[in-house]
Amino acid sequence: MKVIKGGVTAAKGFLASAVNCGIKKSKKSDLALLYSVKPCACAGTFTTNKVRSGSVELCEKHLKGGMAQAVIVNSGNANCCVGKEEIIAAERITGLTAAEIGIGKTGVLIASTGIIGKPLPVEKITDKVPFLVKALNRKGSGVFARAIMTTDTAHKEIAVTLRLGGKQIIIGGAVKGSGMICPNMATMLAFFTTDAAIEKSALKAAFKESVSKSFNKISVDGDMSTNDSAIVLANGMVGNKPVKKGSADYAKFLNALKFVSTELARKIVLDGEGATKFVEIIVKGAKHAGQASKVASHVADSNLVKTMIAGGDPNWGRIAASVGSSGAGINKDKLDIYFGKIQVMKAGSGAKASEKALKAVFKNKEISITIDLGSGKASDKVWTCDLTKEYVRINAEYET
Amino acid sequence: MKVIKGGVTAAKGFLASAVNCGIKKSKKSDLALLYSVKPCACAGTFTTNKVRSGSVELCEKHLKGGMAQAVIVNSGNANCCVGKEEIIAAERITGLTAAEIGIGKTGVLIASTGIIGKPLPVEKITDKVPFLVKALNRKGSGVFARAIMTTDTAHKEIAVTLRLGGKQIIIGGAVKGSGMICPNMATMLAFFTTDAAIEKSALKAAFKESVSKSFNKISVDGDMSTNDSAIVLANGMVGNKPVKKGSADYAKFLNALKFVSTELARKIVLDGEGATKFVEIIVKGAKHAGQASKVASHVADSNLVKTMIAGGDPNWGRIAASVGSSGAGINKDKLDIYFGKIQVMKAGSGAKASEKALKAVFKNKEISITIDLGSGKASDKVWTCDLTKEYVRINAEYET
Repeated sequence: MKVIKGGVTAAKGFLASAVNCGIKKSKKSDLALLYSVKPCACAGTFTTNKVRSGSVELCEKHLKGGMAQAVIVNSGNANCCVGKEEIIAAERITGLTAAEIGIGKTGVLIASTGIIGKPLPVEKITDKVPFLVKALNRKGSGVFARAIMTTDTAHKEIAVTLRLGGKQIIIGGAVKGSGMICPNMATMLAFFTTDAAIEKSALKAAFKESVSKSFNKISVDGDMSTNDSAIVLANGMVGNKPVKKGSADYAKFLNALKFVSTELARKIVLDGEGATKFVEIIVKGAKHAGQASKVASHVADSNLVKTMIAGGDPNWGRIAASVGSSGAGINKDKLDIYFGKIQVMKAGSGAKASEKALKAVFKNKEISITIDLGSGKASDKVWTCDLTKEYVRINAEYET
Repeated sequence: MKVIKGGVTAAKGFLASAVNCGIKKSKKSDLALLYSVKPCACAGTFTTNKVRSGSVELCEKHLKGGMAQAVIVNSGNANCCVGKEEIIAAERITGLTAAEIGIGKTGVLIASTGIIGKPLPVEKITDKVPFLVKALNRKGSGVFARAIMTTDTAHKEIAVTLRLGGKQIIIGGAVKGSGMICPNMATMLAFFTTDAAIEKSALKAAFKESVSKSFNKISVDGDMSTNDSAIVLANGMVGNKPVKKGSADYAKFLNALKFVSTELARKIVLDGEGATKFVEIIVKGAKHAGQASKVASHVADSNLVKTMIAGGDPNWGRIAASVGSSGAGINKDKLDIYFGKIQVMKAGSGAKASEKALKAVFKNKEISITIDLGSGKASDKVWTCDLTKEYVRINAEYET
């Protein structure tokens, strides 16, 4: 497997385009279209938030048959909390796009991100659909990745190539970040494309596992946005024998898809609002996976931990206090904590650690914190970022 | 019931003193003593954090008989995460204080707050105990309330007087704040004194209910500090007939104790680190109390909600998204949201609200947000504050 240039249009047969349709006042692009010249096997995972956008609802509906050929995405407006208008808007936009392309209407998916509670300006969008369709091109991945941004400071895309069934296949992807991700719910959108042929059920399984090992590690359970959507399209255009679940090719495909989603998830964390540090919280020695996950999420969510990292001060007491208050029933006397490789807590008490070495760990852009509960063999990890004044500025000044 | 001047020494027979013993480099007072000339019925509630201070452990032990006569409190060091030394330190300090006063050693309770993981400088404390005992005085409430502060910007105390069993009794209290409280775990300490006579079991019940209706409303379940402690002492010196549970006097006493603790809890929120706003999150129309409480805590904990309030922008979509992601199984189509008295969401969609009126609500120092789940009759409320750049500055710059 090799990383190559590009994103969602790196794989054969995928085209993209983008435009400003007037949702964003800034004149930055806010509407994008992704299209495959052939129908695709398709899978998606969506927010579990009980308050969710009509775009998500329509998207799930269109995805029922496991096939799709295009995705239209708008940024700047979430198409959420405006009642029945949401689904009507999503239907009109996807319907018009399908007609303009000349495919069946369920072939077009939709994703939205931005402000909640304002009606989506449907005319502004539909007015630009003919242009978007005309502008579709093989080099459109960059404009696509930019058009889906909201508070993101950089566009995020990646592509890899690998041999599969005797053919050279490509998997590409683009994401938009999700604010600070943990502990909150600014929207995450992710789009993946591949020219490999893969059976629908295999694609669904591989995508589910990839998302759970990447995006779900940066998004705390139950704290998803109203609009979170991740979609993968596989058009099979390289002509490999369709990948079946459980095969050797499946393992290779899964591995590559995981790599792509993990890299994109990391990019989201690093572009967290105001973030200056990438933090990996590793919990091991847990009695069971649930305990590990509960502790990891709780620590990753702690404002005192996140501000400590922003300040670069190795105040491990805040980690210990957060572990203790996680509700995961830990045993304090077995608790070990490490900053990087330096042990700072041993069996519930402070371990002697060089102040200088610790300060050095905190100067790194990437910091790992390991929490060993000393009570079993289960483990988990979560990625988060620091909490800075810049985060507050961005989120306090964000205008409705 | 009438609010009067003073705090923990307002009630008959209570004395206090404070000093700088050298834990705080700032030379501000960091050691305080509270004492009753007569033994007191006593009750306490303590942190549920699995990582907790030896001071808390010893305090709970001394409290088993439901009697005490003095409390020694240090700020600047939590006496936590240093192993067996913690309990040894707490025993030495309380033992020496008891000897110096001339009472039995379990008569002295202890509370600590400050940095975690550094050994408590026991000698610095014990050196000052004789001075503290000598300095005890009836006007010591202010110095006591100041000495227990850490990042608090103001000392917090209150006292009330009321008729009880034909006598004029006083209840006083002092607290130190707990950082931003929600969603985190900087320590809260609270001390209450009264010259009323009340049976031990009645005092325990009244205190438990008062705490649950006040401090527990600002502290999210399971997210307590390593050192949170709330203690009440009743010396019975006014000579009323001891209050029994279930009596009319009990109701009056409970009501007054609730008032004192509620006012002190509000002071903590208003003095939250960097806080500029007091926010009341009211959830009603819930199926059951658990659902109401889950939604209220989740919204109160949301950094996006808290930064929205700091920014003064009525972006109710953040509230709706937080309610939806609370994991409390709400029905979006029944969801109503109000800022103050202005409805901003009706049955899951935006309600037409005057932008100007909303901006006016957000200019207030105190803001109430009401979330009606439309699904039942249960309700709950939680108090929180906004999340400001100043919060991040305080917590990023706090030095270990």
